[in-house]
Amino acid sequence: MMEKIETYRFDVEAFHVDFTGHLFLGVLGNHLLNAAGRHSHNRGWGIDHLNASHYTWVLSRLGIELDAMPAQYAHVEVETWVESVMKLFTERDFLIRDADNGRIYGYARSVWAMIDTTSRHPANLLALHDGDILRYVLSPDEKPCPIAKHSAIRVSATEPLRTLSTRYSDVDINCHINSIKYMEHIMDLFGREQYETRRLRRFDIAYKAESHLGDVLSFYVDGDVCGPEQQVEVRKCAGGVAAGGGDTAVLARVLWK
Amino acid sequence: MMEKIETYRFDVEAFHVDFTGHLFLGVLGNHLLNAAGRHSHNRGWGIDHLNASHYTWVLSRLGIELDAMPAQYAHVEVETWVESVMKLFTERDFLIRDADNGRIYGYARSVWAMIDTTSRHPANLLALHDGDILRYVLSPDEKPCPIAKHSAIRVSATEPLRTLSTRYSDVDINCHINSIKYMEHIMDLFGREQYETRRLRRFDIAYKAESHLGDVLSFYVDGDVCGPEQQVEVRKCAGGVAAGGGDTAVLARVLWK
Repeated sequence: MMEKIETYRFDVEAFHVDFTGHLFLGVLGNHLLNAAGRHSHNRGWGIDHLNASHYTWVLSRLGIELDAMPAQYAHVEVETWVESVMKLFTERDFLIRDADNGRIYGYARSVWAMIDTTSRHPANLLALHDGDILRYVLSPDEKPCPIAKHSAIRVSATEPLRTLSTRYSDVDINCHINSIKYMEHIMDLFGREQYETRRLRRFDIAYKAESHLGDVLSFYVDGDVCGPEQQVEVRKCAGGVAAGGGDTAVLARVLWK
Repeated sequence: MMEKIETYRFDVEAFHVDFTGHLFLGVLGNHLLNAAGRHSHNRGWGIDHLNASHYTWVLSRLGIELDAMPAQYAHVEVETWVESVMKLFTERDFLIRDADNGRIYGYARSVWAMIDTTSRHPANLLALHDGDILRYVLSPDEKPCPIAKHSAIRVSATEPLRTLSTRYSDVDINCHINSIKYMEHIMDLFGREQYETRRLRRFDIAYKAESHLGDVLSFYVDGDVCGPEQQVEVRKCAGGVAAGGGDTAVLARVLWK
């Protein structure tokens, strides 16, 4: 039987590090999603298999907690496995470590739903393929993921800190704003001094609604952008509207050390 | 003796394609620079070797001409080699092809200078290491690169089409705006319809002066952004200035089919 854990490797490239010499969070997020994609593909649950039967995975939440961020030229290994499967959601965990010395950089947790691409309704994960997905579950007793689960994020700010029009490079093949680009835009809310004096400790993001090419995104932030914690709400307005407001597209929490 | 050509492989990842399902130009540019970095590293001319003696490579021009852009999940091979070495510049070429069927997507040309990192003055490439670099030259007779060389770019527009403040994710480890990010910002000048009705045929960029985190970039464009050709000048103003003007950071030409 197929191993329950998949190991994915990547190198930290020259253009993928920030001015402190550490991997951009968005690039790390991209590698985690690639690891997830490969794990599910190799077990018959990849989007290529699902698309054929009009289903697709939708990322609902991603939380990354790090003791250190990999530095330029580091060789990194990501382990990923499925922690649980419920009717409408599955939890997938990640371990991120240095491939050379085994040092653990940190862990990540993610929550995924499956939707029917025709109706856009959620699918019952336990009913698909006679519950085949349960064969891949590794319980926390077998493989722990020692970081807290996601908690609710609430933002009370009433004025956006930044408003931007989405452009060509913000969107994916479905013309939706790409999950990684939200992470980049959120990390771009912080100035040089924040990165010089603090280190990202935890980043949580919850995807609430899709936004599209041309939509205007407004970033509402609770917590000083020079401080140790911020909660961020990204609201979207259909293209052409330059003001704030609109429906919530994304919620995020950023914690620094 | 070491081969003169280095072959670098990459896969077109899910989050690296645009809404038409084709690789983002900036991601292709990043892979070309990685291929260049590996070729020079493996021949003792990598920035790791050079930094030790206070020298570094500086990309001066990059021109990419494509019959097709690789699509999602394609396996791509990049060949790179040195076409010529002069006192102050070296020309490096690239061939981009499908690794599965050998079909050629296109070619690229680049021009590099070497500078002394202390004085910021250009170095004499022929004098370093007793002309060792000449051992790697492959003349156009031996290995042709059948696309035109760079030609001068002149922009006469007096009002910027777009002005933006550079942010955290725009800069590299030296706190300079990353070469690839200019390409992304230029491709973001075009709307959905341009990508739906035309295909990028050639992109040329010349890096004239470094800009820094917080600088304001203004994009001056000659040629209709819905048309088949544009010339772009990016000017920079030190952080805080919201208006256009300033020194030329980058010149670019974009041709569509």
